[in-house]
Amino acid sequence: MDLDTAVADQRELVTTLFDQLRRDGLDEPGVTRDPYGSGEQRAHDTVTAIAQRLGLRIEHDAAANLYMTLPGRDPTAKRVIVGSHLDSVPHGGNFDGAAGVVAGLAAVAALQRLGVTLACDLTVMGIRAEESIWFQVSYIGSRGALGMLPDGALDVRRIDTGRTLADHIADCGGDPGALRAGRRFLEPAQLQAYIELHIEQAPSLVAAGRPIAICTGIPGNFRYPDARIEGSHDHVGLPRRFRRDAAMAGAEFAMALDGLWQEYDAKGVPMACTIGRSHTDAASHGLTIVPGAFNFSLDVRAYDEAVLAALDRRVDAIIGGIEQRRGVRFHCGTKARAAVGQVDQTIKLALENGAARLGIPVLQLGSPASHDAAAFAAAGVPIGMIFIRNENGSHNPHEAMEIDDFMAGMSLLTWYLMQQSSTHPQSSTHPQSS
Amino acid sequence: MDLDTAVADQRELVTTLFDQLRRDGLDEPGVTRDPYGSGEQRAHDTVTAIAQRLGLRIEHDAAANLYMTLPGRDPTAKRVIVGSHLDSVPHGGNFDGAAGVVAGLAAVAALQRLGVTLACDLTVMGIRAEESIWFQVSYIGSRGALGMLPDGALDVRRIDTGRTLADHIADCGGDPGALRAGRRFLEPAQLQAYIELHIEQAPSLVAAGRPIAICTGIPGNFRYPDARIEGSHDHVGLPRRFRRDAAMAGAEFAMALDGLWQEYDAKGVPMACTIGRSHTDAASHGLTIVPGAFNFSLDVRAYDEAVLAALDRRVDAIIGGIEQRRGVRFHCGTKARAAVGQVDQTIKLALENGAARLGIPVLQLGSPASHDAAAFAAAGVPIGMIFIRNENGSHNPHEAMEIDDFMAGMSLLTWYLMQQSSTHPQSSTHPQSS
Repeated sequence: MDLDTAVADQRELVTTLFDQLRRDGLDEPGVTRDPYGSGEQRAHDTVTAIAQRLGLRIEHDAAANLYMTLPGRDPTAKRVIVGSHLDSVPHGGNFDGAAGVVAGLAAVAALQRLGVTLACDLTVMGIRAEESIWFQVSYIGSRGALGMLPDGALDVRRIDTGRTLADHIADCGGDPGALRAGRRFLEPAQLQAYIELHIEQAPSLVAAGRPIAICTGIPGNFRYPDARIEGSHDHVGLPRRFRRDAAMAGAEFAMALDGLWQEYDAKGVPMACTIGRSHTDAASHGLTIVPGAFNFSLDVRAYDEAVLAALDRRVDAIIGGIEQRRGVRFHCGTKARAAVGQVDQTIKLALENGAARLGIPVLQLGSPASHDAAAFAAAGVPIGMIFIRNENGSHNPHEAMEIDDFMAGMSLLTWYLMQQSSTHPQSSTHPQSS
Repeated sequence: MDLDTAVADQRELVTTLFDQLRRDGLDEPGVTRDPYGSGEQRAHDTVTAIAQRLGLRIEHDAAANLYMTLPGRDPTAKRVIVGSHLDSVPHGGNFDGAAGVVAGLAAVAALQRLGVTLACDLTVMGIRAEESIWFQVSYIGSRGALGMLPDGALDVRRIDTGRTLADHIADCGGDPGALRAGRRFLEPAQLQAYIELHIEQAPSLVAAGRPIAICTGIPGNFRYPDARIEGSHDHVGLPRRFRRDAAMAGAEFAMALDGLWQEYDAKGVPMACTIGRSHTDAASHGLTIVPGAFNFSLDVRAYDEAVLAALDRRVDAIIGGIEQRRGVRFHCGTKARAAVGQVDQTIKLALENGAARLGIPVLQLGSPASHDAAAFAAAGVPIGMIFIRNENGSHNPHEAMEIDDFMAGMSLLTWYLMQQSSTHPQSSTHPQSS
């Protein structure tokens, strides 16, 4: 039995599981797996049933995350976690999140088919509540598992039900009290690696014509959620040299950031900047009024803390120049920051080697989006991610992943697990010799 | 008696009249002379009382405009009208509009003091309802006088009272039925000139350190009151090359127009462009969403129809380029146009000559704003305008005109009337020989 055959044998498991998950979450158009609600719970139940059929050990933590463990030779060895989240946005796609859990279970089944026993425990993790749209808090499940939930998170309310996160967690058998006390289920020092397979949320793989990508990093960011430019409201006939047009200052700011991005693109340094919200004041704007106020939000993200720091300085310089040239004043308001999620270079290299061995063409890709893996990285756990080609983006019912591409990613995941979890990397578990 | 003395003798009349008008309209902060309402009516009553004291003939038309006539030697000769409006915006300044009527009455008094009888009738006109904020229709009084009110105008409602223009006109003794029938009080072919003195609504005279300006033209414009850019709503992590960011397209559009304006400024061709309203959609925008829609308004104005037409083509070309580069689509919606208000070159030259004779330093200035004079120009009446230096713009309580500057403008107006209305320009009415 070789790896290819063992993986191919899981195709039916994979398609059956995705189909069942789609039926569980169906909420036309698309699927809704509301976190700590019935949608997400049905996915947990379906996944648990498969894990039980595979003979895995089932556990839950205080955040009601699901752990499905295939024991290794040494129960005291640092374990590997393969996971992703099982919730979705409202009317989202079937693959965002769930693909990572399905891949973990299919990899377990392939390992079993190969008769391989890993050196350490392998845990497939079904993570709760990753989508921040519901509670406006990100990484609830993964940060809960790691004892890193932010202050006050348990008291926030789900935007649709109005009930607190604590109540929702209790509904699903969790223990909000333990979370409040900061107790953690996962001890970062005892984790060898956290590996997440996820659909790509941008069309880079589609454009490159490759089935999978190896993640080079998860972006950190700085954000101004609520910035404002103050100029002067004036008569439409005011000559240009007298104007202090706040919206024109906003336009210059946007174009300067776009130019900055083009400059970094040309250097091959990945980043992104987004002015998601921008507007003159509804109460004072009009066809014949030079706008004296302009509001905007800003998200600047990059994969390297030094790049982020440089961008931060550049943004400040751009603002200073515009203030001087246009006689306006920027009030940037609260500044939020998120650290870069560093990918473990050893894991990344192992995944690259694996793809080369398996003959899978891969792309090196900075994650366009945030993922639970970033919470593990923040806790000091070595992380790696595999992205699967996906048309039409995510967070919508039109996401479209080909099962062939998924199987390629799952195959690489299985190969990686065999390599990294074996005490003897060149032993009989090597696919070429099995 | 020379012109200087005759004009100087009117200083008390002028200050008394402005003070009374301020008291009539007082509505802290500033003054409110609501058109076809009690604020405007009090101004009409005050002005009428002064006109009666000066022995002028008082008339009203169907739009309740006020005509105060000083008879000339030949009642069949084409008459000259000196006028402006007596309404104001809510909490506006005391001089916007009223200064032109006060100047006309003071010029009449100066002519009487000089013992000059003009060749033709001179009518000082107190015009109704120029400020479009109240009925959202511009030039109601002047266009009513000329039989050029737009269709449906009589049925629009004042934004504060909710009552129709027709009802408001009837309240003030006007005849909405006659207006509806298109009857006109003023016959353009029988008017020699319409002269309007008005405060400047921008700080060009303040910046230039000159008391008055001779108007070189009233701008025409083209407008997109409600335009929209359509792109694609996407995830904040989407790489630049895949984005169809509607707001970024809007920023590029704004900056391109700003560049166009700088180009015209450098050539010395006056114009203005204003994006008064611009915004992403409140329902779909957010910190982590690439905006797929952006709405804006546009006003482009210039003083020459050929310049306007060229700007129109340039705007189209800018839009085409952005659509191609950014994968977005502009939906410009309704396009509104207003013709350029051409200043009569003979009148303009006469005013320039007069200023030179009187030793008043003047600026040549395109009107930043629209004025009743534009309605007269549209009807084919030769027009001229004199702007008075004014700090702090208009349409606000802080407008600040110095009486010395006003007296300089009024002096030029008086000189002009003596010249233009005399059948013998070099006769005894010439200031130098009187």
